[in-house]
Amino acid sequence: MTKRKALTSPVGFNAQHSPMGAFMSFTCGNFGTRGGIGLQIGQPADQEVFIGFKDGDRHSEATLKCLPFYTAAVNRASDAFLVEQSGPAEQNVKPDVVPFKDFSRSYGWASDQWEVEGLSFSAYSPFGEIPDPAVESNQRMREGLLPAIVARLELDNTSGTTTRTAMFALNHARPGSRILSEDLGGGRVAFAFRREAGAAAELRDFTSSEEGVKIDADPFLFMRWSASDGVRERHNPVHLLGSCPGFGFEVPPGKKYGITIALGSYLEGIQTSGLDGRYLYTRYFKGLADVLQTTLDSADKIIASAQSLDAALDNSPAVSDDQRFLISHATHSYYGSTQLLEVEGQPLWVVNEGEYCMMNTLDLAVDHVFWELDHNPWLVRNLLDTFVQRYSYSDEVKVYKSDFAASADTVQVDPSQTPPPPDEAQLNRPFDTKPGGLSFCHDMGAHNNFSPQGRSSYELANLTGCFSYMTQEQLCNWILTAGCYVAKTRDLDWLKKNQTVVEACLTSMINRSGDVGFAQFDSTRCAGGQEITTYDSLDHSLAQTRNNVYIAVKSWASYWALALLFRELGTSDNQVRCEALAAKVAQGVSEQAKDGVLPAIFEKSNPGYSSRILPAIEGCVYPLYFVNTGFAGRTVEQFYATPSEKRMFEVLREHTRNLLLDPERRNLFADGGIKLSSTSNNSWMSKIAIFMHVTRRVFHLDADAAVAEVFRQADSAHVKWQTEGSSYWACCDQIVSGEGKASRYYPRIITSALWME
Amino acid sequence: MTKRKALTSPVGFNAQHSPMGAFMSFTCGNFGTRGGIGLQIGQPADQEVFIGFKDGDRHSEATLKCLPFYTAAVNRASDAFLVEQSGPAEQNVKPDVVPFKDFSRSYGWASDQWEVEGLSFSAYSPFGEIPDPAVESNQRMREGLLPAIVARLELDNTSGTTTRTAMFALNHARPGSRILSEDLGGGRVAFAFRREAGAAAELRDFTSSEEGVKIDADPFLFMRWSASDGVRERHNPVHLLGSCPGFGFEVPPGKKYGITIALGSYLEGIQTSGLDGRYLYTRYFKGLADVLQTTLDSADKIIASAQSLDAALDNSPAVSDDQRFLISHATHSYYGSTQLLEVEGQPLWVVNEGEYCMMNTLDLAVDHVFWELDHNPWLVRNLLDTFVQRYSYSDEVKVYKSDFAASADTVQVDPSQTPPPPDEAQLNRPFDTKPGGLSFCHDMGAHNNFSPQGRSSYELANLTGCFSYMTQEQLCNWILTAGCYVAKTRDLDWLKKNQTVVEACLTSMINRSGDVGFAQFDSTRCAGGQEITTYDSLDHSLAQTRNNVYIAVKSWASYWALALLFRELGTSDNQVRCEALAAKVAQGVSEQAKDGVLPAIFEKSNPGYSSRILPAIEGCVYPLYFVNTGFAGRTVEQFYATPSEKRMFEVLREHTRNLLLDPERRNLFADGGIKLSSTSNNSWMSKIAIFMHVTRRVFHLDADAAVAEVFRQADSAHVKWQTEGSSYWACCDQIVSGEGKASRYYPRIITSALWME
Repeated sequence: MTKRKALTSPVGFNAQHSPMGAFMSFTCGNFGTRGGIGLQIGQPADQEVFIGFKDGDRHSEATLKCLPFYTAAVNRASDAFLVEQSGPAEQNVKPDVVPFKDFSRSYGWASDQWEVEGLSFSAYSPFGEIPDPAVESNQRMREGLLPAIVARLELDNTSGTTTRTAMFALNHARPGSRILSEDLGGGRVAFAFRREAGAAAELRDFTSSEEGVKIDADPFLFMRWSASDGVRERHNPVHLLGSCPGFGFEVPPGKKYGITIALGSYLEGIQTSGLDGRYLYTRYFKGLADVLQTTLDSADKIIASAQSLDAALDNSPAVSDDQRFLISHATHSYYGSTQLLEVEGQPLWVVNEGEYCMMNTLDLAVDHVFWELDHNPWLVRNLLDTFVQRYSYSDEVKVYKSDFAASADTVQVDPSQTPPPPDEAQLNRPFDTKPGGLSFCHDMGAHNNFSPQGRSSYELANLTGCFSYMTQEQLCNWILTAGCYVAKTRDLDWLKKNQTVVEACLTSMINRSGDVGFAQFDSTRCAGGQEITTYDSLDHSLAQTRNNVYIAVKSWASYWALALLFRELGTSDNQVRCEALAAKVAQGVSEQAKDGVLPAIFEKSNPGYSSRILPAIEGCVYPLYFVNTGFAGRTVEQFYATPSEKRMFEVLREHTRNLLLDPERRNLFADGGIKLSSTSNNSWMSKIAIFMHVTRRVFHLDADAAVAEVFRQADSAHVKWQTEGSSYWACCDQIVSGEGKASRYYPRIITSALWME
Repeated sequence: MTKRKALTSPVGFNAQHSPMGAFMSFTCGNFGTRGGIGLQIGQPADQEVFIGFKDGDRHSEATLKCLPFYTAAVNRASDAFLVEQSGPAEQNVKPDVVPFKDFSRSYGWASDQWEVEGLSFSAYSPFGEIPDPAVESNQRMREGLLPAIVARLELDNTSGTTTRTAMFALNHARPGSRILSEDLGGGRVAFAFRREAGAAAELRDFTSSEEGVKIDADPFLFMRWSASDGVRERHNPVHLLGSCPGFGFEVPPGKKYGITIALGSYLEGIQTSGLDGRYLYTRYFKGLADVLQTTLDSADKIIASAQSLDAALDNSPAVSDDQRFLISHATHSYYGSTQLLEVEGQPLWVVNEGEYCMMNTLDLAVDHVFWELDHNPWLVRNLLDTFVQRYSYSDEVKVYKSDFAASADTVQVDPSQTPPPPDEAQLNRPFDTKPGGLSFCHDMGAHNNFSPQGRSSYELANLTGCFSYMTQEQLCNWILTAGCYVAKTRDLDWLKKNQTVVEACLTSMINRSGDVGFAQFDSTRCAGGQEITTYDSLDHSLAQTRNNVYIAVKSWASYWALALLFRELGTSDNQVRCEALAAKVAQGVSEQAKDGVLPAIFEKSNPGYSSRILPAIEGCVYPLYFVNTGFAGRTVEQFYATPSEKRMFEVLREHTRNLLLDPERRNLFADGGIKLSSTSNNSWMSKIAIFMHVTRRVFHLDADAAVAEVFRQADSAHVKWQTEGSSYWACCDQIVSGEGKASRYYPRIITSALWME
């Protein structure tokens, strides 16, 4: 095993270790909090994770030393970071467990490893293509959907003179721990939590072999109310009422032993409402024992696969160490949110929205698309189809009959808070209606509850901020996702089947665009409210959809996506029309430039007019993708070939350069991290990743050493946002002045993988 | 509707409102804590329950007034009981909801009603026979297993001059609330929590009709993040991300309107491990919508049934108001712990052990038997069979080769704590073995995890106190349960099928009894430990099984049960043998009397020798039952007809009288409650109930005015134990000096129903 580099940043942060499509995470890493195996939740689970060893045999009275993944490992009273367990009640009592103080951690694309005093604990969660049951073998489906990860706990006692005893245990806050009675073969032992989750272990000798050699000894199994009691207990190591099941093994002096641990889940039966969905893996696995046994049987392969992925990222020349960290962290959390269901005999793909657990939020899906097309394009198709079939709608749009000045006091909320009240002035604004057209819901439901046909869990009428409709943006998102899908797969069969949908999308784009060519009207679904963008809790700079520079450039890209799709469909009229519309939008954008920057909102009376936003260039990522996949049949420059588009390119480049190098640093936080809007302390890491990618690959601004340095410092700050600012919440998207405040435990930061291109 | 008497004791205590066999409770009543619909848990659930009204229509700005079943209803900082919601952060903010201050509560055998300012909220949970699917119709099964209860919320605005708006809502701590989209007919509205639980409501006019008249209006449905916001919200009363779904209705002046609410559950698929059990009700109901619709369809019948049960207890001449309360409270909690499963196509009956959720704890089952035989004897048979088939074992017994003095420092623990370490002196005590025989496990598992064949979740080897084996006592418990079953049902078919089991029980009783005739040896299952009794956390007076007066009298009763079973089997040899053994045990007990009392343990060196315990007479309840069912074919006196049994009767009577009238009040708490052991502050209400019943019906000591007064005061104290000492935990069994400390949310106090005889 090649030794990987240890982290130099703080090591006390949670990571999600997740299989693909099981909506499961084994989470650990933050100090003094609970984690362990969590299923179908948008936060770390409720187990204390004990990983450590003690001197002597299992029954010895030596104090157990553990990694600090249990509540008493951090003394909150004194607010110290990592101290001996002590408190008024314990001062005369020998501590049950003491936390290790000096350890190292290395964190890879598909692994996580802790080392201290000869102990090493590694978690492996390789990923790859999620196989399509329509074309793949049963065996491939079992490999791809195995709802488990592998961990290995080794204790090197080769230089020791007495036996040492290592252990791994999960102390559950909820009742329901049990011993798994099924025979998993080969001296393996296992425990479970009710029917839903479990762990199995087997012992090997690693003294002279990295792969380990089977020996005539098995791990011992225990289940008491504490880890130390379970290890030490002579007479009744297993009490069926115990809350803390675990594995242990003694390591004689001169030896290095280790256990391979399968950490798995099995949720049987229908798990969702609205649509009756069960996990697709239940088609391929008989139950929890099958999952755990299969995982141990394939553990060597799983570990090798994880190490190979680690090496691939480590050896990726395009990215720095900080970027490597962010990509790794993002990948871990992305898979923790994935859920592959079977509904009415057909697969249904869901990515849950981190802590909010909204299902297939379309403004996340459009960001996940690059990653998903690299790994499993059939799931992008699945998502597109589900949106068309169940989560689309047709509306009219509102033509306002009076002007209205939005308030500058934008209420900043997040989806775990109550929506703001509607703005009475906006509500009373009179309007006529005219045809709108097709669009798509914000999401498909939340927390395993699919919402009714044509309705999201998020969107509400009569609002002007968070929780309002995103009709225009979700229309762009479906078009862009479809464009990327066809760009990557050239699946013309699918495109032809969806020709009327694509045509309806164009009609809908045009109907919403007015003379300017993009987003002039709000959907009647808003009733008295107005449409918002995906940046729902940022500020006025990105709250309003109409005349928003971010939406404008995204609309430009959407017309190009449509143009290319119509090219494939052979409907050149529409293609030409789309190209003309793209040029028109570009014209509108270009004209707004003033003093080398673009306003966020193209309305002088709007407070967003003076905001400067970096996501102005976000939409440029799609033409880049069409170029990189070869689908465009042209270069990036050729996308900006018309005079207006050439001008827009220059304006956007200048805007971006000026914001990044602003002497007042209005688009940077104090720590050097990227601030998406000059007027808001909210920033989204996933969007920063896209922004940086476009800045580098479309505008090549990193060729400027000053910009490169801004980015280098930003990368470093962004790492700290994760490891310090939101250490409990694993990968966190929405950062308020360096601290993860919302959109936590989030999948979308997977956009950072674009950096590897 | 006949007006029932309001409680005069404190009204702020939780009650469980539960259907039969669904392991579900709708719990509310304690102030300032969460409750609501809980499934498969041994404690109140996690919802704030909002029940109240406000002046004006639903959109009015008037403050909502609610019953205090939500966390902010009690200000913990000031430790006041019920105060206005206020705190540093809220002092300038109008409170969202204010709690009612003066209200009344009446609590019946199958109902619970709160009244204040024209608002009344009633929960109805009628019970009866749980039907046997082998003989009952589909329709009867649906009626008997309906996993739901009914509530009614009425608002009397007949003397009002403006509209008022009433509401009911559940604010969930866990995410997953949803609107139930299925059409339940008749303008009904419904919400749910994921797939597992839900509520539905329909509106009627009760102005001039107790049954209500359908009107042309429906309840309104809301789901936001708070109850008050949901009621008031004009534009988006339903947000699918909301945590607090509910129903409301406006009541015009001059009217009294009300909603009938179905509160139900539906857990589909396999819910247990070890044995794959699903709820039997899933055979009869299609899903949650079916459950809720059926409940509303039958609501009038359900309410009438509850009221009829209320009246039956109210009119029971044998019991006082305090006793009525205890019987009601016990019945509510008993059903909350019941779970009727289907395993391999056959019903499997489980009563969960309150907060511990151990399944079918046999030392509880033997106490539930009187109630269950009155209502559904087939489930007692089911339990007996399950114990024989899966949870029985055969052992040897230990013949100690040395004396051993138990320590007086008995460690008092409960099953939520770690077991005490074994006593080294006891562990090292040498012994020979000799044949033991058949006995039964303490339980069948815990928290939906069935334990392996022949093993309980509770029992451990090498212990001398809590968590040790109860081999002798569980043998008695199976015999006595079987005896009661045959006594009540005269099911000789079953008896004949179990003849070898009954014979094995006799052999096992004899093998454990030595020359004295009862419980002289510990099971080899204890390894180095010793057997304990069901009073596991009391003290040394009831810790040891050997030579324990409680076990002695229970053994005497067990021999009598066997004698009667052998009489039915026509094996008179065994019958005569059992009767002789009973007389022999009685002889041994009688001889221990000294100065008018019996020692708890018949070993002078044991600290229990000086303890005085009231459960000495507990075993006498079984012969009484055999008499009352007519099975004995004799009077109570005739059970004490031999010289030794007559003597035992007199000794036990004298013992009981002396303990109850002890001038030092060593068997009473300061509040007058019954103290089972003179040397322990632990007392079990369920066991007190049996003790009182035997004292009255076997020994007629209540004919003595002094004893009657002790009992009257005790009843009053026992009510306070529940309503004040353990108000959060609904019906609580184990009381430490007046406070519910363990065995909370418990089924066993149903023994109090014996008082109605």
